[in-house]
Amino acid sequence: MPSYRAPVGDVNFLLNQVFGIEKYSNLSGFSDLSSDMLDAILSEGAKLCEEVLAPLNRVGDTEGCKRHDDASVTTPKGFKAAYDAYREGGWIGLSADPEYGGQGLPYTVAAVVNEFSSSANMALAMYPGLTMGAIAALLTHASPELKQTYLPKMIEGEWTGTMNLTEPHCGTDLGLIKTKAVPQGDGSYKISGTKIFISAGEHDMSSNIIHLVLARMEGAPEGVKGISLFVVPKFLVNADGSNGARNGVSCGSIEHKMGIHGNATCVMNYDSATGWLVGAANKGLAAMFVMMNEARLGVAIQGLAQSEVAYQNAVAYARDRLQGRALTGAKQPEKPADSILVHPDVRKTLLTIRAFNEAARALVLWTALKSDVAHRTDDAKARQEADDLLGLMTPVLKGVLTDKGFENAVNAQQMFGGHGYIEEWGMSQFVRDARIAMIYEGANGIQALDLVGRKLPKDGGRGVMAFFNEVGGFIKANAEDETVKGLLGPLGKGLQDLQQATMWFMNNAMMKPDNAGAGSTDYMHLFGLVALGYMWALQIKALGPEKAEDEALETKRLLARFFMERMMPETATRLARITAGADSVMALSADAF
Amino acid sequence: MPSYRAPVGDVNFLLNQVFGIEKYSNLSGFSDLSSDMLDAILSEGAKLCEEVLAPLNRVGDTEGCKRHDDASVTTPKGFKAAYDAYREGGWIGLSADPEYGGQGLPYTVAAVVNEFSSSANMALAMYPGLTMGAIAALLTHASPELKQTYLPKMIEGEWTGTMNLTEPHCGTDLGLIKTKAVPQGDGSYKISGTKIFISAGEHDMSSNIIHLVLARMEGAPEGVKGISLFVVPKFLVNADGSNGARNGVSCGSIEHKMGIHGNATCVMNYDSATGWLVGAANKGLAAMFVMMNEARLGVAIQGLAQSEVAYQNAVAYARDRLQGRALTGAKQPEKPADSILVHPDVRKTLLTIRAFNEAARALVLWTALKSDVAHRTDDAKARQEADDLLGLMTPVLKGVLTDKGFENAVNAQQMFGGHGYIEEWGMSQFVRDARIAMIYEGANGIQALDLVGRKLPKDGGRGVMAFFNEVGGFIKANAEDETVKGLLGPLGKGLQDLQQATMWFMNNAMMKPDNAGAGSTDYMHLFGLVALGYMWALQIKALGPEKAEDEALETKRLLARFFMERMMPETATRLARITAGADSVMALSADAF
Repeated sequence: MPSYRAPVGDVNFLLNQVFGIEKYSNLSGFSDLSSDMLDAILSEGAKLCEEVLAPLNRVGDTEGCKRHDDASVTTPKGFKAAYDAYREGGWIGLSADPEYGGQGLPYTVAAVVNEFSSSANMALAMYPGLTMGAIAALLTHASPELKQTYLPKMIEGEWTGTMNLTEPHCGTDLGLIKTKAVPQGDGSYKISGTKIFISAGEHDMSSNIIHLVLARMEGAPEGVKGISLFVVPKFLVNADGSNGARNGVSCGSIEHKMGIHGNATCVMNYDSATGWLVGAANKGLAAMFVMMNEARLGVAIQGLAQSEVAYQNAVAYARDRLQGRALTGAKQPEKPADSILVHPDVRKTLLTIRAFNEAARALVLWTALKSDVAHRTDDAKARQEADDLLGLMTPVLKGVLTDKGFENAVNAQQMFGGHGYIEEWGMSQFVRDARIAMIYEGANGIQALDLVGRKLPKDGGRGVMAFFNEVGGFIKANAEDETVKGLLGPLGKGLQDLQQATMWFMNNAMMKPDNAGAGSTDYMHLFGLVALGYMWALQIKALGPEKAEDEALETKRLLARFFMERMMPETATRLARITAGADSVMALSADAF
Repeated sequence: MPSYRAPVGDVNFLLNQVFGIEKYSNLSGFSDLSSDMLDAILSEGAKLCEEVLAPLNRVGDTEGCKRHDDASVTTPKGFKAAYDAYREGGWIGLSADPEYGGQGLPYTVAAVVNEFSSSANMALAMYPGLTMGAIAALLTHASPELKQTYLPKMIEGEWTGTMNLTEPHCGTDLGLIKTKAVPQGDGSYKISGTKIFISAGEHDMSSNIIHLVLARMEGAPEGVKGISLFVVPKFLVNADGSNGARNGVSCGSIEHKMGIHGNATCVMNYDSATGWLVGAANKGLAAMFVMMNEARLGVAIQGLAQSEVAYQNAVAYARDRLQGRALTGAKQPEKPADSILVHPDVRKTLLTIRAFNEAARALVLWTALKSDVAHRTDDAKARQEADDLLGLMTPVLKGVLTDKGFENAVNAQQMFGGHGYIEEWGMSQFVRDARIAMIYEGANGIQALDLVGRKLPKDGGRGVMAFFNEVGGFIKANAEDETVKGLLGPLGKGLQDLQQATMWFMNNAMMKPDNAGAGSTDYMHLFGLVALGYMWALQIKALGPEKAEDEALETKRLLARFFMERMMPETATRLARITAGADSVMALSADAF
């Protein structure tokens, strides 16, 4: 049975020592957040995740969700009680607007709790996770009336939320959506169509389910410019806020998936269901994008979360498993064999995962803080700077953290030998659960295209220049600092490769966009390596020259060195692929594949 | 429902045009093998795999194997009939000794059929596959009497075979084996102990199951030098060859695995089961290694096989899936969207898989031919040269083809977006099935250690020098050949990186073996890249300067270029990691992980 310990200490170090969260006290939600209070919140969240959510992870996988003949769906045993505990702790509204009952704490804190809960039980954490996304979309775009109707109960967790985008023939290309919305003259619409892959679409955890649905009104412009967003509750809401009649939306079936079995992934049938427009007509995609950006960061965090829990269990196994002897002679001669932790290849595998995890966690928090600044500051310049970097980094985090998170889960599973392949050990589930994060909320190829095609050229490259200046500035400013000196060479080389790749796109992709498409995924990973490397430099800088009392913190010096020696060099291969261009990629006729 | 077409044309090209199979006509089994006959055999095998095995692949996954209260095991519906068809086609004894009823054809041909059947239905193909391994071990080490008792029915497929190595506390470190063998004075032994992860350990396909079991006799030397190999039939065999009494071996349970559900992975309990010694006492590991080398090549082929079938299905999906528009403007304006095959990132992903597949297939056949020479030639020098390269390349193939095979299956699954995560589409199964190949027959970390620790220094590096000379010689000899000229630069650079890494080990790992261990996996993959690159050069050389009539063959030029531009550059990153050495890997105390 796998176990999980939330990395509270690491988060405290990052938020207090590395990113100086006290500097943000001018922002709403940050002002009262002392480091003691932060620690108390995180410790409470950790406890819930470790003791309530984690023990149900295997149960969720083996039992899965069940759809009954009446189209109702039952979640795995224990899930409802665990969800209730989560909800009663106030975790769903942690960073939501206090006007509607939220606690108004920083999004950054919610992101941390998201990591903990996703490590503990990703399938379960998705129910509140999707609700938080729906809350964000309603908060930004819905009318005051809709907000008042839905937000308080969603923030409280009495009702949950979903997002309905995908249809059988389209996921990436939402311009092809066929679901129809017909105005009823009373401000409501009748929604009809079929949506697929709807996470938490139907279940037994909440008394109502609030669906956010993309649909097309008759006569709307073709493509994405004719899509509107609607709110469609499972039960219509009476004037007094109680549940009224059953709406015309139901679960047609649930999918048999590779993983996240505990989350009901539904085909949702809308049959003249009553819905209300959220935001302006035909501006549904923009409204949904509010939800998607936050959702993409949430998915990036899932990648990290699976990598973290897989690492913890792989280390525990490696420490206990006696097999063979160290290459340099027996290390535990009193035992029949040495622990496999003596083997360089095992150590290298584990260190690769951990050197990723601790940098990825830093990068998540660095980006989450940008999100908080972007949404909460009154300073226009600061907001724009934060928004630039948030937009730029969102696809990088989504693509890189989920690709590497999955890869790390696979490598952690490998440490178990044959036992890793046996479901009871739980490592297979981490791999299978982690796999979806590379696909949903925009498959990673789409993230790479978003980065290269949209985010890079946006505002004349203002965001990417800001990033280069920040990293380059750090390297310059710390050239003589003995604490980080050893890291700056490899970081500088990585930055140089990234800048060269960026330049290459500028020179070669304007006239021939396929050159950007052919290098997009490599560029995304190249960007990720530099960003993660920068996070290592920031951490070691914050650690300072003195030996840390905490062993885990002192270990960071080694991890930073390991990252620079063994992970950063990959930038060269990525650059070589990018500058190879699109010729050999595009030459083949479609028939010849 | 996924589909499969066996790549008969590619194999014909490789065996006839690239490797000149007619040059081997002095070896037994090759002499009568005209290219027409080869094509006929492969086409027949392809048909069986496409029409009988492949349609059962999903059934096997969803239904799995079932153990009953009487310890019997039922395989999925249709498996027995398909196995019978396989057996009746004579495929099990394809390359086995005609003295015992085999057809005596080259192992190379059996390796090809192994690829086809593993693509079609890996779980099913493992039943005859393990039997072939057991046949090989008995042929080499068993007494004439044991051979006569077991081989004919195993070669016929009336009986199947297994290999029993792993115990709960040991897999890699076989020196820890506890299963006991007690001599009975009549030439037989009583075997007692528990073996785990026994593929095809119990099932309903054959009338008897012949277990090869590693066990320790009382008073035997400690560790691997005290292990003996025994043959333990499920039913004792009467003097007339019929099945006699049930032996004391039974299936205690079957494992719940991530994949290959159609293959029964059993815990086998030996309770004073009667067995007979195979080969010399305490030399069991050597006897088992005969089986393991061939089994490792077989597992390498499984990696390729999953990559191939995943590629085929990803291409079919990409061709049909309409989503978005080409970056350079609509390519199918008459349709609501373009096929996703227009997108450079999709093409890059597919080409990466295919450029691997066609080189990996070549490398499998190149290595299989070495195996045939090593086992069938009378020329001592030729045998030694072939044996050197076979030993060297076996861990490279096992490690690289299964690591990349899995990675490719994952990337092929990614082409399906959300559909890839849904079991009905079959892509998840390819990923889950491919995963085991990285683990069994020696986890890939062990393969890397075998390569670096044993195969590299063996006989003063004779094998690796032969490989360097062959590749280096090719580059030199073809420097002026316009057909391959463009490939030689990248190939030469890769070879140089590999030679530099080898040199670095020689200089740094003798005194400090951790330096070899810390770089072993990167070295294995670096070796694989150069070997695969060499296979591309050989193929293009064989293709010659004229345009090939066959489109698939002409496409190879592009694939070779793609490989050199985008895959070979990874050698630099691998070299950088290797030369980083073991310091940062070994510094951390076990507690600090």
